[in-house]
Amino acid sequence: MGNDIDTAIQSIEWREDHVRILDQTYLPNREVYSDIRDVGRMWEAIKKLRIRGAPAIGIAASYGFYMGIKELPENAFESFWVEVERVAEYLETARPTAVNLHWALERLKSTIQGHKDKEISEIKDIVLETAKTIHDEDKRTCKKIGENGTELVPKDAKVLTHCNTGSLATGQYGTALSVIFHAHEQGNDLQVWVDETRPLLQGSRLTSWELMNADIPMKLITDSTAGSLMRRGEVDLVIVGTDRVAANGDTANKIGTYPLAVLAHENEIPFYVAVPLSTIDMELEHGDEIPIEEREGDEIANFNDSRVAPKKVETYNPAFDVTPHKYITGFITEKGIIKPPFDKNFEQLFAD
Amino acid sequence: MGNDIDTAIQSIEWREDHVRILDQTYLPNREVYSDIRDVGRMWEAIKKLRIRGAPAIGIAASYGFYMGIKELPENAFESFWVEVERVAEYLETARPTAVNLHWALERLKSTIQGHKDKEISEIKDIVLETAKTIHDEDKRTCKKIGENGTELVPKDAKVLTHCNTGSLATGQYGTALSVIFHAHEQGNDLQVWVDETRPLLQGSRLTSWELMNADIPMKLITDSTAGSLMRRGEVDLVIVGTDRVAANGDTANKIGTYPLAVLAHENEIPFYVAVPLSTIDMELEHGDEIPIEEREGDEIANFNDSRVAPKKVETYNPAFDVTPHKYITGFITEKGIIKPPFDKNFEQLFAD
Repeated sequence: MGNDIDTAIQSIEWREDHVRILDQTYLPNREVYSDIRDVGRMWEAIKKLRIRGAPAIGIAASYGFYMGIKELPENAFESFWVEVERVAEYLETARPTAVNLHWALERLKSTIQGHKDKEISEIKDIVLETAKTIHDEDKRTCKKIGENGTELVPKDAKVLTHCNTGSLATGQYGTALSVIFHAHEQGNDLQVWVDETRPLLQGSRLTSWELMNADIPMKLITDSTAGSLMRRGEVDLVIVGTDRVAANGDTANKIGTYPLAVLAHENEIPFYVAVPLSTIDMELEHGDEIPIEEREGDEIANFNDSRVAPKKVETYNPAFDVTPHKYITGFITEKGIIKPPFDKNFEQLFAD
Repeated sequence: MGNDIDTAIQSIEWREDHVRILDQTYLPNREVYSDIRDVGRMWEAIKKLRIRGAPAIGIAASYGFYMGIKELPENAFESFWVEVERVAEYLETARPTAVNLHWALERLKSTIQGHKDKEISEIKDIVLETAKTIHDEDKRTCKKIGENGTELVPKDAKVLTHCNTGSLATGQYGTALSVIFHAHEQGNDLQVWVDETRPLLQGSRLTSWELMNADIPMKLITDSTAGSLMRRGEVDLVIVGTDRVAANGDTANKIGTYPLAVLAHENEIPFYVAVPLSTIDMELEHGDEIPIEEREGDEIANFNDSRVAPKKVETYNPAFDVTPHKYITGFITEKGIIKPPFDKNFEQLFAD
């Protein structure tokens, strides 16, 4: 791979004794970096979407977890463990839908259990090292997803994507955007349709910014425009990310993904989900078991500080929707492309 | 009908020698009324969506046309006619998609031709009277549409609508909203899902405001949320308006309508279009002949005065899309409900 892609943006970085994040709420107007030194600030950063995207949330929570346990008294393991569980539970409340948060915390807790006979101070160091490993693994995973997905992108394709799934949303490269970055890097003159992604405009603010930084031709559209583009043959491929995939392939992702999948299906356009294995939740049989985060109505009724709907308007603002697996052409993972039947093929993937 | 509904908002009003409009760009924060006294100001008001909605545009253009011809020299009919055509052509450039603008101007021009032997001053008076007639007819038509549509609304239904199709968009009552107003008036405890309708938020700003004024229970959602509501059985009926219907039933309406129609079809939910006959364009065989207005990209890249996408971002911002007739359950007109096959049934409707 060339230099361009290897120097992609770092949304989150461990710096000796704290985390530095690129605060995504200020983009694209300002690049503001924030230093986070305690678990409470990390909880707030995740909750407020200063750091966001399922894989990046997993990484952020891992470092946050370390910051939450590093000052704990170094006495008996049992009392340490009680506090460890409390920290993990607290972090889990920040955002319910992305499984990576849960996955990372479970992994860190089982690492602790695996080293319960060691000194507490040593266990703390191991937790930090594991958090860094989770971060590094995510970068490699995202790179692999990008490389694996390029074969699906027709030459000079018009690719449509939703929300933000780039370096900002992950350790590096991204998931769906990693495929786009890698295809572009390999000389494919693709163009990207970027859904603005209401209500928080991750497409306008973040995906546009990442694609323009990478000199990839793109056009920003309202979410409602995607359908007519598909109908008129202006979309060759849809690639999105995901916050949680159930064992049967049902996929939770940013609100608006389900409509895109139905429209792609109706217009016979391939619809792929780029996903690290850590986002597949084999404990859930189907998508209707995935908890869907409902956010404040002000995200719709206000914009910045101005009101765009009448005072006291009632709203309904779910952050995600579930796309039934029948609308999904395949999943792009670090272990290759997974085609239907997803239930069987996922089982085999995790058995390998 | 009760008093509530008969005192609905007047978006446009003729006042002796000028037009007063409720400037919709300030809603819902401020109710600003503007007096318009010349055709240039009316062109600007239509272009900038101070007055909008296909039927209201037809009414506004009619009064604008009168204001454009009333100062013309009262000499030979031939030189008067040259100027008449120039005024009509100018007004037509304000917005291309809504056929009502074209329809109203054609009607006024043929009224003039029908009275070409009269004094020019008399012809001018006839034009004003015809403009008022177009306005009055629209009120009656919208009331009829509302009454005719109520039979389609199940008791306590959850109805989803898009953009604004209420009193603000018409002479009075509206089209799709007229059905909702009339069903509510008849004691049906319906609830309404209101799509915010990006990019100009006619749903948030205008439809919410009209429904809340009428005490009809509603919830505001992002356009992308409609799909998952349909999938989960939370929508019983979709009703939208339209800017132009082709002779085969293909329907142009606010961008985002086509996705709603496909999603309704996929989830077996009735999808109706409320339309005055003046919006059906029997001269166009199918929807792909309907001109689609493309608007400034800043409507997407800026939000009020703040920037939400990187500088120099490329955009694509069509104001409308076309829904193929196969996704449409029926049309609600002032002459009753029209079911498929639309081509034959429209022909019969206009032959009657």
